[in-house]
Order: sequence, then C-alpha cells, then structure tokens
Amino acid sequence: MSPAIGGPVLIVGTGLIGTSIALSLRRAGVEALLSDPDAESLRIAVDSGAGRPLADGDEPVLVVVAVPPRHAALVLALQSARFPLATITDVTSVKHRVVDDALSLGADPVRLVGGHPMAGREVSGAAAARVDLLDDRIWVVTPLPENGPEHVRQVNRLVSACGAYPVTMGLAEHDAAVALVSHAPHVLSSALAGRLVAADDDYVRIAGQGLRDMTRIAASQPALWIDILGANAGPVADELEGIIGELQRTVVALRALARHADDQPASAQLEGLLGAGVAGQARIPGKHGAAPAPMLEVAVMLADRPGELARLFTAAGRAGINFEDVRIEHVLGRPSGIVGILVRPEAGDTLLGALRGQGFDVRS
Amino acid sequence: MSPAIGGPVLIVGTGLIGTSIALSLRRAGVEALLSDPDAESLRIAVDSGAGRPLADGDEPVLVVVAVPPRHAALVLALQSARFPLATITDVTSVKHRVVDDALSLGADPVRLVGGHPMAGREVSGAAAARVDLLDDRIWVVTPLPENGPEHVRQVNRLVSACGAYPVTMGLAEHDAAVALVSHAPHVLSSALAGRLVAADDDYVRIAGQGLRDMTRIAASQPALWIDILGANAGPVADELEGIIGELQRTVVALRALARHADDQPASAQLEGLLGAGVAGQARIPGKHGAAPAPMLEVAVMLADRPGELARLFTAAGRAGINFEDVRIEHVLGRPSGIVGILVRPEAGDTLLGALRGQGFDVRS
Repeated sequence: MSPAIGGPVLIVGTGLIGTSIALSLRRAGVEALLSDPDAESLRIAVDSGAGRPLADGDEPVLVVVAVPPRHAALVLALQSARFPLATITDVTSVKHRVVDDALSLGADPVRLVGGHPMAGREVSGAAAARVDLLDDRIWVVTPLPENGPEHVRQVNRLVSACGAYPVTMGLAEHDAAVALVSHAPHVLSSALAGRLVAADDDYVRIAGQGLRDMTRIAASQPALWIDILGANAGPVADELEGIIGELQRTVVALRALARHADDQPASAQLEGLLGAGVAGQARIPGKHGAAPAPMLEVAVMLADRPGELARLFTAAGRAGINFEDVRIEHVLGRPSGIVGILVRPEAGDTLLGALRGQGFDVRS
Repeated sequence: MSPAIGGPVLIVGTGLIGTSIALSLRRAGVEALLSDPDAESLRIAVDSGAGRPLADGDEPVLVVVAVPPRHAALVLALQSARFPLATITDVTSVKHRVVDDALSLGADPVRLVGGHPMAGREVSGAAAARVDLLDDRIWVVTPLPENGPEHVRQVNRLVSACGAYPVTMGLAEHDAAVALVSHAPHVLSSALAGRLVAADDDYVRIAGQGLRDMTRIAASQPALWIDILGANAGPVADELEGIIGELQRTVVALRALARHADDQPASAQLEGLLGAGVAGQARIPGKHGAAPAPMLEVAVMLADRPGELARLFTAAGRAGINFEDVRIEHVLGRPSGIVGILVRPEAGDTLLGALRGQGFDVRS
C-alpha cells in the first residue's frame, strides 16, 4: 500500500462509480467530499455514508471526476480551475478525446492525470454503489508527459486506497485496448441482436444460450454507448475493420463450400477462424489479470423441488468448503437441474465426500 | 401426449444426444436399442440404463440417427436400406444438405423425416447424457412432401415421448433459423476471440465479463463446427453478409464522428444500431418459446465467508420459495458478493420478508 492520500478527496458525480469510490475512501479512513447537480443522487450517496456534501472553503487535495463521458472534459477543466493546487483525475472509459478536450478547455496539464477503473455493474446510480466495487480490480492510469510526478503518485495512491491495482498505459494504448475488449464487442453484440428485430417468430423462439450470451450487452442503454463509441470512434473503427475482414474471408470460404463441399482452401479458412477463436478465448484472464486459476468443477444434478439448492449449499457449508463460483446450467435460456460448483482443486475430495454422503447425484 | 410409439426404437450413435434420447424413451416405457461403432461409448450408454445393444433379428419401428453431421447422410441411407419398414429420423443441426445427401444416397423419401432437438450441453459423450435433457425443449421436425403421414406422426410421437415440443419447419426455413440464432453468432464469437491472439498482454488483461460472454462459444471444438458451417454454408454466408453490412455502415459513421464529433447522420446510424440491438435482444424468449415470463429479481449482498450462500438458500427454502433462477454476479470474470434470485412476482414479498428477517442485505 502506498502512503496515505492525506487531505479530503472530492468526488464529482455520485453515480455508481463515484459513490463506490467514495465508500472505498471512507473505508480507508480518507475524508470524502461529494458533489452532484442532481440533489436526489447526492442525498442517496450522503445517506449511504459515502461522505458529506462539498462546502465553501473546502480544499480537496484530489478531485475525482466521475460524470458521463460527454460532460467529462468540461467538468475536468472547471475543477482544475476551481482547485488550482489539487490533483485532477477522472474515471471515463475513453481517454484520448476526454483528456485532449479537457486540456484545450484549460485544464492544467501538470495536474490532470486520467484514469479508468475496470469495474461496473449492470445497474447504475448511487443506490447501486458498493464499498467493494473496486476491490482487486484493474484501474488504468494514463499519465501525461507534462504531469508532475507527485500528481501521478497521488492518483496511484487513490487506486490503492480503493483496493484496486494501478496499470499504467498511454492514452492511445488505453483506447485501443478498450476498443478491442469492450467497445467493438458491444457493436458486434448490437449488430447481431439487431438481426432479430425483423426475424420470424419461429426463428427467434429456437434461440439458445449462445445467442443469449452474445446479445446480453446489446441490452445496455443506447445513450451512454453513443457517447462512448463517438468518443473512441477511431480505435473502434480500426478494430471493427479487422473483424469485418475476417468475416468477409469467411463468407468467401462459405460460398466456395456451398459449391464444393470438399474445397480445401475454404475448409482451411474455417479451420483458421475457429482455431484462432479457441486460442484467443483461452487468453482471457481469470481474476484481475492473473492467469486463470486452476479450478475444479463439481456438477450436481438437483431434483426440481423447493429447498434442494438450500440442502446443497448447507451440505457444502458444513464441510467448510468455500465456493469460488457457482453456475446454474441453462439450457435454451432456462435453468436446468445441473448446478456447477467451482472450488480449489484441493477442496475437491472433501466436497465430493460431503455431497455423496448426503445422497446428492454428483456427476463429475 | 400422442399415442405410444410402440415397438423398439433404435438409436444409432450413443453420444450425448443419442443416449439422452434413449434414456427418455426408457423413462416413457419404450424399448431402446443402441448401436455405436465405438464399443466404449456403447458400453457407457448400456451401463447407464439407456437400452441394450442392437442384435441380429431386431426390427425397430423407428431409427434415430444421432451421429456427427459429416456422417449423418450416409448413416441415414444405410439405416433406411437395412430396415425397409422403419421410420428414419436424425438429430443433425443442419437439415437441407443432410437430408438431400441422404436421399441421393438412396434413403427412402417416404420414411425419412428429419429432426433437430434444440438441446445440448457444453460437454459431450454418453457419460454426459441426462434423462431430462430433452424435457420441455423445442424439437424441430422437417417433414418432406414425399413423407408418409404415419412416418411424420411417428417422429412427432418420439418428440413427445422424450418430453419435448415438436415445431414443424421446412428444411430451408430450419437452416436459415439456425444460421441466425446459432451458426452466424458462432462465427462472430470466433472472429472476435481471434483478435485476442496477437493482442498485447496489457490489452487482454483488462477484459471483462462482456468479452467473456461474447467469446464463450468460440471455445467449442473446431472440428464439429467446421462440419456444421460447411453443411449450412449458404444460409450462414447470407446471415453474415447482413451483419457485415451493418458493421460497415457503423465504421463509416465512426470515421465521420472521428472527424466531427457532432456529425448528425453518423450519430443517427449509431442510435439505429444500438436501438435495434435493444429491440432485438428483447425478443429472445424465456422458457421454450413462450414470451419471457414476468419475473422479479431480488439482489442480495453476501458477506465473503463460507456458508453465506447456504444461509441464504436455507432462509428462502424455509419460506417455501421456489427459485426460477439464481445469478451470481460476475465482475471482471470473478464472482462478486451479489446474488440475484429470480422468483415469480407473487413470491416477492414473502421472500423479501424472510431474507430481511434473517438480517440479509437485500438491495432491491
């Protein structure tokens, strides 16, 4: 843990992320000041113990701007002017345009250190905030060459105080990374889900879990995503062009296979596409950037009656097993009787013994 | 329930689907005969109670071919010749090419009635089979104009005996539907995951749940998918071309927004893309083709210590609540302390009362 931040930290914007940061700071013993143009949101944040409203005469040492992307640059510049000694940072999911715009609006390049915590929930607002939202998460910090070293250190201390891990990236590097792992996938999900709008009822009703997973993020609020995609337009377009190229090569191969089922170059293209997919998927990390931890999955077939899940978890709890994860298997979108319990491999024998001893139908 | 199938049913191919069908038939009191060139797979199926091995002199009234797509046409033709009075069906996920090829190889057009049960698991093989795999699932049946009505009825009886719902489609209609809801999504998932192969470690490590969901199906065995995509090449290429067109329009809009952040037609394109995504996603059904049932989600924040899940489910079980589904929220791919419990709306008050009475931190 870095040395303490010291003095009060001002959180501008008491949404999900801002309020969660304030809660983490309070947990770390740091005074948090809150500001939000929406009085109701501010009240919820204050009532949840995230801090007290900013008052005249307050002098924060650090200002965290946690507002929607389209307002971030202006608010950064205003806060930089209002608190001329404070370190200024933000949490916006796009960095190049936001930081550039803030600088053109007059934000101080010595004190403005951009950031982006990789955390979120499917719900938003102060009421959804959690003290542990940032725990063990990666928090990208994007220092500028002009930044004073003390201001960069201050933002890294903020990250540590919130329980997160700082990862340093350049602005363009960050934006290319989120285009790859978040923004281009969102466009794909929307384009795929959009195909269902005009589809026959009979076609849609046979959809299964694969399509459900692929289109989940397409259900997000369009307004926020128009902002995000617009603010990161270049990198997202670059990423999409790479994907379009691969899809076009696949279409050519499929047309060849439609004519001759044994077309070898066409089969090789499909093999390349699918093989790269397997290899790429395997690179996605488990917890905060570590390699996926080895985990044992125990599948249990439950009878479909009330209380069976309770009986299962009680049996495991009595055996002193901590679950790393629990998966309810879904078939065609509905839960089935199979529950997958992920545990550390060393806990496997104990768990299997405990469940079999209670008469559970353990499948693996 | 339709009248009984009668006489023995032969299952050719004791993989996941074939063995599960045999188990369902046994449950319904129908004699199941099993055949598989892999002696070990056949032994596992027999040992699990799915039926007995086919013997000389057996005369099945119905033959279900449950083999990989690349073998399906030949096996259908061979079985049609071997049992000249039996109804012949299959479970292959592509219909037009398989049925056409089987007919050119000599399968009897009066008795060959194609089918495709919409069920599966992420694991394969006889050992993964489940007696309830087909329960309440849609099972597409694709009759031919030449089919004898009794043979179509026989396949519909098979579907009912397995606990599934028959849905009648034409061959081309089925193939277009699975291209839309399954095969094109698979290609997108692979193309996206493939972008990660050459990506910087720092880029990949910030991946979150969205990318994880979008690339899950890309981890499937390439060999099976080369077969599937090749056998349904035309409809998949058609579907991909529709998606490519939308992605290309999005790239044009993003390039315009990169030049002028306030380009109105470009913003309108993004709005159209994202809005259609929301509308399309909402069409995906809940249980077996019904409109999504109204459901109440209760979010509970658990302390991170052993036994908390057990305590939660015990409290709910004592209140007599049956869960429709349980979701463990994941942030950046790891389970968090939030558990979402989906119940029928009318059970909500009872559940909330029970959980709050036990001191749980209920969030909604």
